[in-house]
Amino acid sequence: MSRADKGKEKEKDTEKEARITPRGESYPDWYQDVIREADLAEQAMVVKGCMVIKPYGYAIWEKIQRELDARFKDTGHQNAYFPLLIPQSFIAREAEHVEGFAPELAVVTHAGGEKLEEPYVVRPTSETIIGHFFSKWIGSHRDLPLLINQWCNVMRWEKRTRLFLRTTEFLWQEGHTAHATHEESLAETIRILNLYGDFADQILAMPVVRGLKSDSEKFAGALQSYCIEGCMQDGKALQAGTSHDLGQNFGKAFDVKFQNERGESEHVWQTSWGVSTRLIGGLIMSHSDDEGLVLPPRVAPTHAVIVPIFRNDAEKAGVMEAALRVKASLADIDLAPERSRYRDFVEVVIDDRDLRPGAKYYHWERRGVPVRIELGPRDVAKGQVVAKMRADSEAGRGKEFVPEAEFVATFRDRMLRYQTELYRLARERRDQASISLDSWDDLVAAFEGEKSTFAWCHWDGTRDTEAAIKDATQVTVRCIPLPGQGPPAEPGRCIKTGKPSPQRVLMAKAY
Amino acid sequence: MSRADKGKEKEKDTEKEARITPRGESYPDWYQDVIREADLAEQAMVVKGCMVIKPYGYAIWEKIQRELDARFKDTGHQNAYFPLLIPQSFIAREAEHVEGFAPELAVVTHAGGEKLEEPYVVRPTSETIIGHFFSKWIGSHRDLPLLINQWCNVMRWEKRTRLFLRTTEFLWQEGHTAHATHEESLAETIRILNLYGDFADQILAMPVVRGLKSDSEKFAGALQSYCIEGCMQDGKALQAGTSHDLGQNFGKAFDVKFQNERGESEHVWQTSWGVSTRLIGGLIMSHSDDEGLVLPPRVAPTHAVIVPIFRNDAEKAGVMEAALRVKASLADIDLAPERSRYRDFVEVVIDDRDLRPGAKYYHWERRGVPVRIELGPRDVAKGQVVAKMRADSEAGRGKEFVPEAEFVATFRDRMLRYQTELYRLARERRDQASISLDSWDDLVAAFEGEKSTFAWCHWDGTRDTEAAIKDATQVTVRCIPLPGQGPPAEPGRCIKTGKPSPQRVLMAKAY
Repeated sequence: MSRADKGKEKEKDTEKEARITPRGESYPDWYQDVIREADLAEQAMVVKGCMVIKPYGYAIWEKIQRELDARFKDTGHQNAYFPLLIPQSFIAREAEHVEGFAPELAVVTHAGGEKLEEPYVVRPTSETIIGHFFSKWIGSHRDLPLLINQWCNVMRWEKRTRLFLRTTEFLWQEGHTAHATHEESLAETIRILNLYGDFADQILAMPVVRGLKSDSEKFAGALQSYCIEGCMQDGKALQAGTSHDLGQNFGKAFDVKFQNERGESEHVWQTSWGVSTRLIGGLIMSHSDDEGLVLPPRVAPTHAVIVPIFRNDAEKAGVMEAALRVKASLADIDLAPERSRYRDFVEVVIDDRDLRPGAKYYHWERRGVPVRIELGPRDVAKGQVVAKMRADSEAGRGKEFVPEAEFVATFRDRMLRYQTELYRLARERRDQASISLDSWDDLVAAFEGEKSTFAWCHWDGTRDTEAAIKDATQVTVRCIPLPGQGPPAEPGRCIKTGKPSPQRVLMAKAY
Repeated sequence: MSRADKGKEKEKDTEKEARITPRGESYPDWYQDVIREADLAEQAMVVKGCMVIKPYGYAIWEKIQRELDARFKDTGHQNAYFPLLIPQSFIAREAEHVEGFAPELAVVTHAGGEKLEEPYVVRPTSETIIGHFFSKWIGSHRDLPLLINQWCNVMRWEKRTRLFLRTTEFLWQEGHTAHATHEESLAETIRILNLYGDFADQILAMPVVRGLKSDSEKFAGALQSYCIEGCMQDGKALQAGTSHDLGQNFGKAFDVKFQNERGESEHVWQTSWGVSTRLIGGLIMSHSDDEGLVLPPRVAPTHAVIVPIFRNDAEKAGVMEAALRVKASLADIDLAPERSRYRDFVEVVIDDRDLRPGAKYYHWERRGVPVRIELGPRDVAKGQVVAKMRADSEAGRGKEFVPEAEFVATFRDRMLRYQTELYRLARERRDQASISLDSWDDLVAAFEGEKSTFAWCHWDGTRDTEAAIKDATQVTVRCIPLPGQGPPAEPGRCIKTGKPSPQRVLMAKAY
């Protein structure tokens, strides 16, 4: 392709990129369009199933990381780093683990110009290699609990991939802890589940159901897996984080032993837990609309965009002066809580490109910037700014005319209010999607074709019934809710088999 | 090995670990001992040439990261993330690049249970894959400059490894930028070189020489490479960071073109630059002594340890109350500059383990904690603390008795003063090691056996002479200093060949 053709190609792309498929037309297309238009990420193509996380998308990940990292540290966890490569034989030591992960492994067979004696796999998760080191580090009950976290990349060779939601390589954190008793490791599992849940609620403004995975959905090698499940706008569930009670499975596989206070040798009790760049997919599908991305301020890379409006140089001078003043005032505001481990200064962009204001509004709406500030000569003369919140568009609330000083003084509150509002809206959508179903026909109807919803149903608790439901409807048991996370616990009869059930569980199609 | 044997083994290890080889006895042994005793990292053993970065070592890396990251952002760079795996054919597109990196590659040949059609290599560095995406992202001069940075792991199959200094996998940041002119890309190369130099001086307290690499030491694929070189205590040089002027080499290899303002198509001019976990090795060898690690406060995970001293429960109550009060006061102090992107709260540990005070002093000295605070009943009665700076031990300055309120009020200054003092000491050592040599015999004598020093010598600028010097003495040209970075530029004659030389260059053995 000649340079001229390539140029044309780019132009065409730009035009094509202008449209975001409405959710009602195709939710999957809408999702991809939102990502492309906000410039969050793209498929690598030349590396199968991998993505490139572009600067705007990566900035969201950094905001997720720093808040989670602070919460991990506040609960006594320490970061460390373990090798990317794992001896292939390690994976085989835990029977369920190898069964679950073997089909997804990427294998290094050659290095330094030679064939390796034993191949290495690129870590799909690190229970095995970390188990190996725990066995070296732990000798006594005084070494416990050992609370470790790792931020890293992992690789699972997936057949069908989708940006952020399922990619061959992804970024995540994986916590790995060792304890002296099952009581303690279980308490850690739940502590982290709640840490994840609070983080999703408070920072991502994504309401989640906290619960226990069914046996067929649990982590390969765990005794039990807990999860947080978010409700996407199409009624499908997104598993947004998991916390595993590993029991002594890996402790036994890697001989991780300690001497208890009575001088007896015991295997440790372990947990592992993780969230990944998948959270960004959940964020997108929780808040965004047909105009593009919507972001809660706590994870927004840019909080405000100022669009200066003028017709000539004389007007421009006054308007730009005001724009710079507003930007400087806002940039001193720290959105982080008072004794936070990081600062979260307000990021402001002045869009002074040579474009019509309408084109600029459009541009920043698609990037989900929480508030747009319009500044024209009349506003400057009146000492006011025109503010427009990104997510008010649907509700119909319009522009606000606010005195500049008041706007600056109340900006932090405005952001936190908007954060709460996005959570309320997401929660409202989830509540609308949440229904209790009691007959098989209703279940089938609720999940016809592409439809999904958060269905609270009775289930007899067996793997066979779960498989039968999935075969017929693509619906899975997303979780058995913890107390207070679903409808009040009341016994009933399984929606598929009619056998007794102690409580309703959450059923939905899943990402 | 039975559990009992394993227990004994551990006990033995503990005793063995108690000794740090003095620097005068064996510098390499001393280095490994310091790392082990401070619990910074260990060799993975089961993964060839890889290391595990343990929590205390990783905490230092996090402090390095956040400060560097802030400096990158303050100079307009954005973080992004590119795939770990690179199609093998990409590496071959730039002739020098493949020659330099091919012998060190780890290769993924199988994935998802199948043999791959084209193997992938684990990134040794990302110029190639990022070049590929730059060619998709850049079309016009309006897309330039493009200033990208990536924090990630990379892998180079090294034959001889040493913790932090040279490991098969390491963590680093790699900056990749594209510009419209060579003037601009060269300015970026130097801007980053100075960013690295300032960071090493101010944060690591490690004085560095900023200069240009000789042709034989430059990055495989660059036009020219700039570097910062630190002087370790044994007189060897550590290349602590590099900034490469890539010219249009990768732009041509990956067809990264833009339309300039006159509508003509041109290849972009690129830079790349990186620092890695190697910096931790430099930190260790810049400041530590025969008692173990010494850390500058700006990168110390723990700033102060309080050792409470008491003989009975009555004394304990009063002492612990004071210890908690001091800890709480110090923990509110933020060491970061005023408008920093992060907070750097003082981290204080109260060591209330059931051990003799002497054992505790010993423990924390080896971890390089900047200040130790002793608190006994008499100190509490007098309202004072006993403070002992870690690195004063050699200079012979002893304990200070400071009123508690004054100690807290001046703590930030104390830390910043200590930071400056460590820099001064390191600079003094480097100045002592820096000598101008003019005869071949002097050069040979200065680098006899294991000896090294920072030798400023004339060199005729040829690859052959450099090779001859290296063959005879293991000495390499570390860099051609930038103005003001070495002795005043004066012409002379090459120390090996007697041919003319425009200025002295830095020669040393290198890590």
